[in-house]
Amino acid sequence: MIIIGEKINSTLKAVRPAIENYDAEAIKALAKAQADAGAAYIDVNAGMFIDDEPKRMQWLVETVQSVVETPFCIDSPRVSAIEAGCKYNKNGKPIINSLTDEKERYEAILPIVLEYKTGIIALCMDDNGMPEDAEGRIKIGERLINKLSKEGVKHDDIYIDPLVRPIGTGSHYGMAAIETIRVIKANYPEVHIACGLSNVSFGLPNRKLINQTFLVAAMMAGMDGAILDPLDKKLMSFVYSCEALAGIDDFCVNYLEKYREGFFE
Amino acid sequence: MIIIGEKINSTLKAVRPAIENYDAEAIKALAKAQADAGAAYIDVNAGMFIDDEPKRMQWLVETVQSVVETPFCIDSPRVSAIEAGCKYNKNGKPIINSLTDEKERYEAILPIVLEYKTGIIALCMDDNGMPEDAEGRIKIGERLINKLSKEGVKHDDIYIDPLVRPIGTGSHYGMAAIETIRVIKANYPEVHIACGLSNVSFGLPNRKLINQTFLVAAMMAGMDGAILDPLDKKLMSFVYSCEALAGIDDFCVNYLEKYREGFFE
Repeated sequence: MIIIGEKINSTLKAVRPAIENYDAEAIKALAKAQADAGAAYIDVNAGMFIDDEPKRMQWLVETVQSVVETPFCIDSPRVSAIEAGCKYNKNGKPIINSLTDEKERYEAILPIVLEYKTGIIALCMDDNGMPEDAEGRIKIGERLINKLSKEGVKHDDIYIDPLVRPIGTGSHYGMAAIETIRVIKANYPEVHIACGLSNVSFGLPNRKLINQTFLVAAMMAGMDGAILDPLDKKLMSFVYSCEALAGIDDFCVNYLEKYREGFFE
Repeated sequence: MIIIGEKINSTLKAVRPAIENYDAEAIKALAKAQADAGAAYIDVNAGMFIDDEPKRMQWLVETVQSVVETPFCIDSPRVSAIEAGCKYNKNGKPIINSLTDEKERYEAILPIVLEYKTGIIALCMDDNGMPEDAEGRIKIGERLINKLSKEGVKHDDIYIDPLVRPIGTGSHYGMAAIETIRVIKANYPEVHIACGLSNVSFGLPNRKLINQTFLVAAMMAGMDGAILDPLDKKLMSFVYSCEALAGIDDFCVNYLEKYREGFFE
């Protein structure tokens, strides 16, 4: 399972002040804790700082790579910030989060992916918006895979995001995401599937339970990446349990190791 | 989700003495608690009492139906005990747990299913044993569906058990069960899928976590019945969360109701 640590994100109320005040120690601590907890990538997002996002992205990247070698997931709605993240990165191949099949966004992000030879999270949406059903998402996801492949992006560098929408606003959104994962992973086994978990429970009570449920459902359908909080031990317990159940963790070796370490509370 | 309450079972150390000592109050309390917690069926098993199992099965059935109207899941390896359960049952259509495609067992159980017009849990195994992979299980499961149908058993009365074997003894057993569920439910939507959960974690530490993980995975694959402990609130939380995620619980109405009742701890 490819864990993308989500904590260094300006949309998180608890973290935003650290970015606002250039509190390097706080950011370094979050980076180190996530890397220690098994994050394969560290997401960095300064998107709430509209006036000087590229400068803050540069600072985040430089601050994080001063303490860990974990590669980045460079996360922004803005091209200038993504470019800054890639430019100052020294931590190995990053993933860009994200492009879509919206013409403008696709054309703006693609050159950066190619120039810096990055991985890319590709969302199953286009200029017609977010498809309601799995069929629409699969169509866009597979179109994106084929377009990116033609540009020379390897399947192994593509992370399809099935679009996780709140089940509180549409009872079909859970299965639409799960079915998208299942079909794309079956058709393109080398392509990764990665998404955030928490959208699914937006607006509902007891969100952690639903996020855990979605994590398991998505992993069993073939999701092999997730943007999540690796410091959430309960959630990570389900990652390890699911790897054992899915047969990825051969002979439950890692699960038993975590048990011996006293990981499960 | 069809919950089959598993508590009244002579293999459970905590429950066995109540059956041994004909402690009617203890059995009634377990029956009532499980019915109140949402069990659609009450499993009754006296299989540990080899000398007089039919008599104890009769007592269990009569004791339980003196306090609840919930139908039974009549659970035994022995035909005589299953027959006794069916004979003394007054609580509506029971399910028999279980038959297989082993010639001897199939031929012994089928007449009881037909005579008492019961539901039937059918395990995906035959005289060649328990298939290692999903393909073998699906083949047996579908053969059992077709054979039972020809005898006049409706699809809605058939509960396929995909065979849940411990992932600690074979890393492929989790996915084999999940894949069996997915394919049989897709091919026979009227047929139910029901199985116990706890086999999957046998021999591993922190079993509840793995059982919860398997419950979610199986439900998302199409399992619509489970033999479980409905008094386990954490496990039942995952049932409700999964129903919301799968879109079975339209608009999350039941999930929100459970929340308002203070069900989630």
